[in-house]
Amino acid sequence: MSYRSIKLIKYPTQEFTPDVFDITTQAIPTPKEGEFLAKLSHLSLDPAMRGWMSPDTESYIPPVTLGDVMRASGIGEVVESKNENFPVGTRVMGLMGLTEYAISSGQGINPIPKELPAEAILSVVALPGVTAYQGLFEVLKPEAGQTIAITAAAGSVGSLVGQMAKNLGLTVVGVAGSQEKCQWLTEELGFDQALNYKDADFAEQLKSVTPNGIDLFFENTGGAAQAPIFERMNAHGRIAVCGLIADYQTDSPAPGPSWLNIIKKRLTIQGFTMPDHIHRFPEYAQALGGMLAKGKLKYRSHVIKGLESATTGLDLLFEGKNTGKLIVEL
Amino acid sequence: MSYRSIKLIKYPTQEFTPDVFDITTQAIPTPKEGEFLAKLSHLSLDPAMRGWMSPDTESYIPPVTLGDVMRASGIGEVVESKNENFPVGTRVMGLMGLTEYAISSGQGINPIPKELPAEAILSVVALPGVTAYQGLFEVLKPEAGQTIAITAAAGSVGSLVGQMAKNLGLTVVGVAGSQEKCQWLTEELGFDQALNYKDADFAEQLKSVTPNGIDLFFENTGGAAQAPIFERMNAHGRIAVCGLIADYQTDSPAPGPSWLNIIKKRLTIQGFTMPDHIHRFPEYAQALGGMLAKGKLKYRSHVIKGLESATTGLDLLFEGKNTGKLIVEL
Repeated sequence: MSYRSIKLIKYPTQEFTPDVFDITTQAIPTPKEGEFLAKLSHLSLDPAMRGWMSPDTESYIPPVTLGDVMRASGIGEVVESKNENFPVGTRVMGLMGLTEYAISSGQGINPIPKELPAEAILSVVALPGVTAYQGLFEVLKPEAGQTIAITAAAGSVGSLVGQMAKNLGLTVVGVAGSQEKCQWLTEELGFDQALNYKDADFAEQLKSVTPNGIDLFFENTGGAAQAPIFERMNAHGRIAVCGLIADYQTDSPAPGPSWLNIIKKRLTIQGFTMPDHIHRFPEYAQALGGMLAKGKLKYRSHVIKGLESATTGLDLLFEGKNTGKLIVEL
Repeated sequence: MSYRSIKLIKYPTQEFTPDVFDITTQAIPTPKEGEFLAKLSHLSLDPAMRGWMSPDTESYIPPVTLGDVMRASGIGEVVESKNENFPVGTRVMGLMGLTEYAISSGQGINPIPKELPAEAILSVVALPGVTAYQGLFEVLKPEAGQTIAITAAAGSVGSLVGQMAKNLGLTVVGVAGSQEKCQWLTEELGFDQALNYKDADFAEQLKSVTPNGIDLFFENTGGAAQAPIFERMNAHGRIAVCGLIADYQTDSPAPGPSWLNIIKKRLTIQGFTMPDHIHRFPEYAQALGGMLAKGKLKYRSHVIKGLESATTGLDLLFEGKNTGKLIVEL
């Protein structure tokens, strides 16, 4: 009995290319005392994975060691166990990597209920949801009546931020990279406005749909949308810096805006990453599960199939070609 | 009986030039009911005045109207009064403008004790002190053992920030623009390190004197020092943006650093201006007065003489040629 894994064999120098990965086949191992063996059913492909492939020891978690299975979160089922906390049949979620099977001691792995579809879990209750929750509630501290701008608004995180903000009574302006995404935001998710940052007159459009300026900015992308949004910030505005996907693929990231506006408007800009807040995941997941059950959070997932699809699937993220949470079904 | 005032007759387009001012002579007026007449003894020249000369309605306070007396804070004595809260002989401080005499209703003007020298008041207890206090305690929230970097460290605000941080047990690294200023910081004020940002190897020097990185950054200048300090920030570092004097004189301010570091290091960057915090001035002034009385805050003032010296004196600030709090003695 054998299984396949995707290993990182070199760090991408600039643009991600699938040849940084190698698919290896090996015998399925037997768990030792305290361990269990999980068979993965779904893998999550996330923008953060680009950072984990950078040999940058200063980042918030260490990069993946060359030769190791590529780090990724996923869902699986325990099929063999010498760990009483994870009996055979337990459904589990965690950073088990791009692999069909994984051995684990259980550290960082959580049992999850069997009822919810895997797509709902990976799209809402897992990393995208807790990220959206942390950034919106803990960093931006929204108040009804405020205007929020969200980049990568049709992405897995942005779409949840916008819906939660709308539920709180904010005016929600989403920024995305295609007409189709913008339509989904306004027609399906109830965003007040959705703009395509690729439009030549994006800055003018933004100005016209934010007559009262922008109070909160949930930043997922960097790139062309950043400066126009930054210019529209109101006094005492708050900015959560969650992602800069436009800059992940380059050795010389674009400069940020002048800090003059930070003084004039007394802005607060705060970066965050979720490993700092793992202790709050259960609380956030419960809140997100509740909103999902009440039909207050819609999501869409972009499912690709087979382990090998993960190697090329990551490119969809960096090119903005995925439509919804990118998931590999095994 | 006549007196002189400095009026703003045009907005500087880029670099400040003294010809934006006109010195006018007029008859000394008589206060109406509820007003008093103050004779000014000392005027304060502050970097913020450059912003008040920009016709930018989006800034934190409105610009000075053309033809009006240039806004500035100062110290004076009530010489005629129809306001019972400000009897003749009261020493007062507030935004009375670049003028030898001022009529006031008392709004925004505070009585101050007669004991302290005017230089001590304007250098420590007034705007520089409350600004340093707000930025250090309310924005940066320092803890003993941290490392703080301060730009314009020999300036009126920076020198107080550094001394208060040192008193709290932080490692204090000052950045200034001359060898003389650096010596003053380390030899007189007790800074741990002081670096000249004009040195070609400034970034390397900064690295070598901050082996444990930088936790807190009190930013007064922008310019060449900003990027190297930003690069040295530690995880969860905090940045208070108080001033960007290097950018006040240009129509195209330099861009800021890429926001990637904000995510990687989970930084918080916060701008602040003191008009938002006027209600706390009495509390801060009391704390600063206490530190001053205990000899825990040293200052130096750069005194120039005569009203007309104010028109050219502002240039000293923007060129970094003042040594200490710039004060006009009338």
